[in-house]
Amino acid sequence: MKKVINVPEQVVEEMLQGMVLAHSQYVKRVDGFEVLVRANKPGAGKVALVSGGGSGHEPSHAGFVGRGMLDGAVAGAVFTSPTPDQVYEAVKAVDNGKGVLLIIKNYSGDVMNFEMAIEMANADGITVDKVIVNDDVAVENSTWTIGRRGIAGTVLVHKIAGAKAEAGAELEEVKRIADKVIHNVRSMGMALDSCTVPAAGKPSFILEENEIEIGMGIHGEPGTHREVLRTADEITDHLVDKILADMPLAAGQEVAVLINGLGATPLMELYIVNRKVAALLKEKGLHIAKTYVGNYMTSLEMAGFSISILKLDSELKELLLAPADTPALVQF
Amino acid sequence: MKKVINVPEQVVEEMLQGMVLAHSQYVKRVDGFEVLVRANKPGAGKVALVSGGGSGHEPSHAGFVGRGMLDGAVAGAVFTSPTPDQVYEAVKAVDNGKGVLLIIKNYSGDVMNFEMAIEMANADGITVDKVIVNDDVAVENSTWTIGRRGIAGTVLVHKIAGAKAEAGAELEEVKRIADKVIHNVRSMGMALDSCTVPAAGKPSFILEENEIEIGMGIHGEPGTHREVLRTADEITDHLVDKILADMPLAAGQEVAVLINGLGATPLMELYIVNRKVAALLKEKGLHIAKTYVGNYMTSLEMAGFSISILKLDSELKELLLAPADTPALVQF
Repeated sequence: MKKVINVPEQVVEEMLQGMVLAHSQYVKRVDGFEVLVRANKPGAGKVALVSGGGSGHEPSHAGFVGRGMLDGAVAGAVFTSPTPDQVYEAVKAVDNGKGVLLIIKNYSGDVMNFEMAIEMANADGITVDKVIVNDDVAVENSTWTIGRRGIAGTVLVHKIAGAKAEAGAELEEVKRIADKVIHNVRSMGMALDSCTVPAAGKPSFILEENEIEIGMGIHGEPGTHREVLRTADEITDHLVDKILADMPLAAGQEVAVLINGLGATPLMELYIVNRKVAALLKEKGLHIAKTYVGNYMTSLEMAGFSISILKLDSELKELLLAPADTPALVQF
Repeated sequence: MKKVINVPEQVVEEMLQGMVLAHSQYVKRVDGFEVLVRANKPGAGKVALVSGGGSGHEPSHAGFVGRGMLDGAVAGAVFTSPTPDQVYEAVKAVDNGKGVLLIIKNYSGDVMNFEMAIEMANADGITVDKVIVNDDVAVENSTWTIGRRGIAGTVLVHKIAGAKAEAGAELEEVKRIADKVIHNVRSMGMALDSCTVPAAGKPSFILEENEIEIGMGIHGEPGTHREVLRTADEITDHLVDKILADMPLAAGQEVAVLINGLGATPLMELYIVNRKVAALLKEKGLHIAKTYVGNYMTSLEMAGFSISILKLDSELKELLLAPADTPALVQF
């Protein structure tokens, strides 16, 4: 294992310290916990959003804490659900009296621990609700998950629900819009190569030279199958087919597209994929209102990518395009 | 070689198509050339900035075309200088009558071809000047370069000179400020693993398991030495030492820091590096005004990173923090 780390046991702690040092205008630490919240807590009157999960998916989730997106993010150990008390601390730190919405990716451990945190917070009189993201069309009931997994489409939930909360909507409304995004977004990925969890010291799975995995999860959970490496166009064609088979879209429909790198994939390759996605969607008469290309929800240094397609209506589009300002992908 | 591509000969063409499709609100193609320019050309009265070089460093350079940064970017073949006629076309496309500044990384081929383009443009009556970035303190006179190489510090030149041009400064002033950034910025990198140029089909260099290279270039040019993998803190200590030995800074000095991923390095590791950089600079009494962490100047899927430190004064700081809006690292 070659990594730029000190000791495997300290990677999350040291990462969080490095993040706060880099982005102190955006985020601060909740003392004693693996929780980052906005450096400047919004005034009363805003529903607070909390997300999180295992570490190793950066910039998700702490990178999306900021105006127009999340209020807090909880960082578990690498690829490991945060504990209920960590989530509970995040909820307490961000609550503004108007309620808190938890955005949970559909992994059994995450769901269980976030739900326990809801019970703890409710006992304190804090109103907390949740949505569960399950955008991955590849497989049902994979490792760690009952039902479908939540992957990169989750950041579109952060963005749209975040914009709704920022606009002053009530908790019920923010939850409604988050669920609408979840209903309208589908994703699927592929991997050229695995990643190595620092504490494990060896790759999560092994692919042969010239072998790829289709539909694996962001922790390396098994996908639909392995196959011989094909061209970018052929792979893209397959993933878009699977997504649109699951969510048929009529000609004229507006969509947003996220080409998400898993950590070790050059932007060059992501743009080559985007070229084909755009061509395929155009063939079907779909209109792309917005495209994101880059590393939004990674799997450490996994090589590969996922495609997410979000079906838009005027409400979702307006919220997607609303301004946001977060540490992820900090722009000049 | 496992890559998400179609054929090696088409990677740059297909990437550029994918970029324009993703970011059409920012960039458009100069027909028939590997040149992207702003989708909306600024009105007269703005000096135009052009940069570029071999492809494979994305988001550099086309990702920085937009308001407050570049006006045009020229994309050579992977790790190969663009031809003079490509640069010449970029200059013609962006010229607004107020002159064009070329920002060149110090590689012999780039310098030669950009200079030939200046002669071609001058013959057309277009005023063109240049600056040459050589921020890499690692080695002198490496492969492809006489003097020091230009690496990630180049994007800070784009940012600051871009802000100056956007503010309406004359060519001479924009060149002066670009040269001031070059004078004040130093960088150095390390690699855990090489990358593979698609047309070559095999890694640019080979490192043993547990071996790293210190000070290599962004095309895999040799660095100062290879050594056994050490901790993140030890590696960071060494790189910061080399940078500050070359550019001593007095206590109280303000700086900007760029922790640049080379393509396959998880953000987790970059933040762990930033934690140590921030601690080292604090020990020396330096103040960090702004930190960037992410993939700004990559080497395809090379694993590793570079550190850049920019010495600020009030003029540079103001321009660094001025707004910009480009496709790179597109934020929500």
